[in-house]
Amino acid sequence: MQVGNKYYESLWFDRDHPGEVRVINQRRLPWEFQIQIIDSLEEVYLAIREMTVRGAPVIGVLAAFGMYIDAYNHPDEAHLADRLDHAAEYLLSSRPTAVNLAYAVSEQQKIYHAISGHSAVTGALLRRALGMADTEKEACRLIGENGFPLIRELAEKKQGEPVNILTHCNAGWLATIDYGTALAPVYKAHKEGIPLHVWVDETRPRNQGARLTVWELKQAGIPYTLIADNAGGHLMQHGMVDIVLVGSDRTTRNGDVANKIGTYLKALAARDNHVPFYVALPVSTIDPALKDGKDIPIEKRAAKEIIEMEGMTGTKIQKVSIVPPDTPVMNYGFDVTPARLVTGLITEKGICQASEEGIRSILKY
Amino acid sequence: MQVGNKYYESLWFDRDHPGEVRVINQRRLPWEFQIQIIDSLEEVYLAIREMTVRGAPVIGVLAAFGMYIDAYNHPDEAHLADRLDHAAEYLLSSRPTAVNLAYAVSEQQKIYHAISGHSAVTGALLRRALGMADTEKEACRLIGENGFPLIRELAEKKQGEPVNILTHCNAGWLATIDYGTALAPVYKAHKEGIPLHVWVDETRPRNQGARLTVWELKQAGIPYTLIADNAGGHLMQHGMVDIVLVGSDRTTRNGDVANKIGTYLKALAARDNHVPFYVALPVSTIDPALKDGKDIPIEKRAAKEIIEMEGMTGTKIQKVSIVPPDTPVMNYGFDVTPARLVTGLITEKGICQASEEGIRSILKY
Repeated sequence: MQVGNKYYESLWFDRDHPGEVRVINQRRLPWEFQIQIIDSLEEVYLAIREMTVRGAPVIGVLAAFGMYIDAYNHPDEAHLADRLDHAAEYLLSSRPTAVNLAYAVSEQQKIYHAISGHSAVTGALLRRALGMADTEKEACRLIGENGFPLIRELAEKKQGEPVNILTHCNAGWLATIDYGTALAPVYKAHKEGIPLHVWVDETRPRNQGARLTVWELKQAGIPYTLIADNAGGHLMQHGMVDIVLVGSDRTTRNGDVANKIGTYLKALAARDNHVPFYVALPVSTIDPALKDGKDIPIEKRAAKEIIEMEGMTGTKIQKVSIVPPDTPVMNYGFDVTPARLVTGLITEKGICQASEEGIRSILKY
Repeated sequence: MQVGNKYYESLWFDRDHPGEVRVINQRRLPWEFQIQIIDSLEEVYLAIREMTVRGAPVIGVLAAFGMYIDAYNHPDEAHLADRLDHAAEYLLSSRPTAVNLAYAVSEQQKIYHAISGHSAVTGALLRRALGMADTEKEACRLIGENGFPLIRELAEKKQGEPVNILTHCNAGWLATIDYGTALAPVYKAHKEGIPLHVWVDETRPRNQGARLTVWELKQAGIPYTLIADNAGGHLMQHGMVDIVLVGSDRTTRNGDVANKIGTYLKALAARDNHVPFYVALPVSTIDPALKDGKDIPIEKRAAKEIIEMEGMTGTKIQKVSIVPPDTPVMNYGFDVTPARLVTGLITEKGICQASEEGIRSILKY
């Protein structure tokens, strides 16, 4: 997407620097637009764990590049497959909830278990990582196309009044390679000239809504308003939300949706107020191996994400402790929205019901 | 309640300083325990508006003292009733949602419209303010007594495991004169030796949970864990919450409950997971003049409450901007939880259903 007058993706590979991958450092936004070069397995691991890069689709792609970079960096490795199996395990330990990470790693494992020779393996790993990036990007473009009619219909009903969309966390192009998942239909609708306004949930504790979604929408020139996570129910009670659009980190066979903690509360409010609640996701985020949401591992993250808050004082980025540092804290990263609360899933293959039948119709398994 | 080895109330009057009222400065907690002396109508207004003192019961009492202080400070006022009518209007403009404020002011108005003479009026205003403080305090003590059996029953079911209580915002003794509303049964249960654990919602944007409820529970030695506002639904889905207890700023004739923004989302999650959801409030918070929650004025507060976050860096209290200062923001202070989601109201006169019949049985109107 456009940043100022230049087009960026959230992650890209430059053939002139074959041992590296480049990402937008999402920990510096909105204060600073910084490109980070990642050139080792350890840095891939840290970028995922510390959330320099986050969002289920993009951490999958980054992990695929991580396997490639590790192979590239060790041309003399006698036991390349063993090395890469360790790399796979290491990357899988970075974050547990998003299925894309596990999928990407297992795709790379298929390659080096099938072929041998360092340059053949390395070349194939790179091609697969690039292919995944392309696939994710195209999937998100299509999610935009497929979700767009939902917004267009609302716009027709509203006869020129802006369509009010509520979103939680960041499911924009920073979380994918390009376009986004939940935001892809929003970008498409904006491009088509439909008047829009987006309510952006702050998304405590890490404030991905406040920091990233606000930044994305500002770049795109789409009107938005930042709200506390607590506010969405009140807005829906007062007819101020026409549709809720969120992403997903893993969706199970029956349509249960793991997404950023707090998503479930918004789904409940949407149901209580007859507001459509859609989840936008590439099919790579669907995990047909899991029967339902109870089987999704939910990440517990560090206490300091709740205790500390980062912001600007003058021109300096600074952290403050918003409670005494020894305060007992519990910090779950995700929750599961039961399929019964989801109006539909928007995928690159079309919109389907959040149900076993709906997902089967999309995945054709 | 006990602060270290001394007993405090959140607001008190000292006969040796008859033109003043003393409050705990809630803007400095948890970093500093500071007592603030308030000795003019303007300072009363600012203490309420800027939330040096907050919580429906205590701002009512403070407003009553405000009327008294204004009379006390103007012994030569020829038109005392006119002056106090202006004072009343001024105080009412400080914050719109809590009914206690309007009630306290109207109670004082009755006095100076009924009697005359500066010292007679001043004396009567002081007696009424002191009486209100006593009434609120006793009401909260009784809320503790009346709510306690709910916790005791849960404790019996849990056979020695701690009862997990979730609370939103601060409805403790800082928000009342003493004991609290939602926390009164918790303090009582703790005193009775029942094992407890409290999940404390951070309560963005002003973090009254993180700053005040955590501080209160720590003083009392009750185990607690701070969570993001987004987390409560997940905890309830996983059986980690036995009861939700919250306060109220205004409850209408039919049992609709205005409380801190985000309360409605927790009520929805409680209903969805069969967790009892109780609202604790003195009857002074019930507004029988209002038919239902749609009639409650909902305060919109300053954008900077969302944009800025206060905390400690080393030994310094500092504010950081968590988003660019020009970010568009909407900041509603309260939402309305419909009566249908409320398991019961805990008042000083007993527990009743959140319904017209239930409230009638308590208020006997």
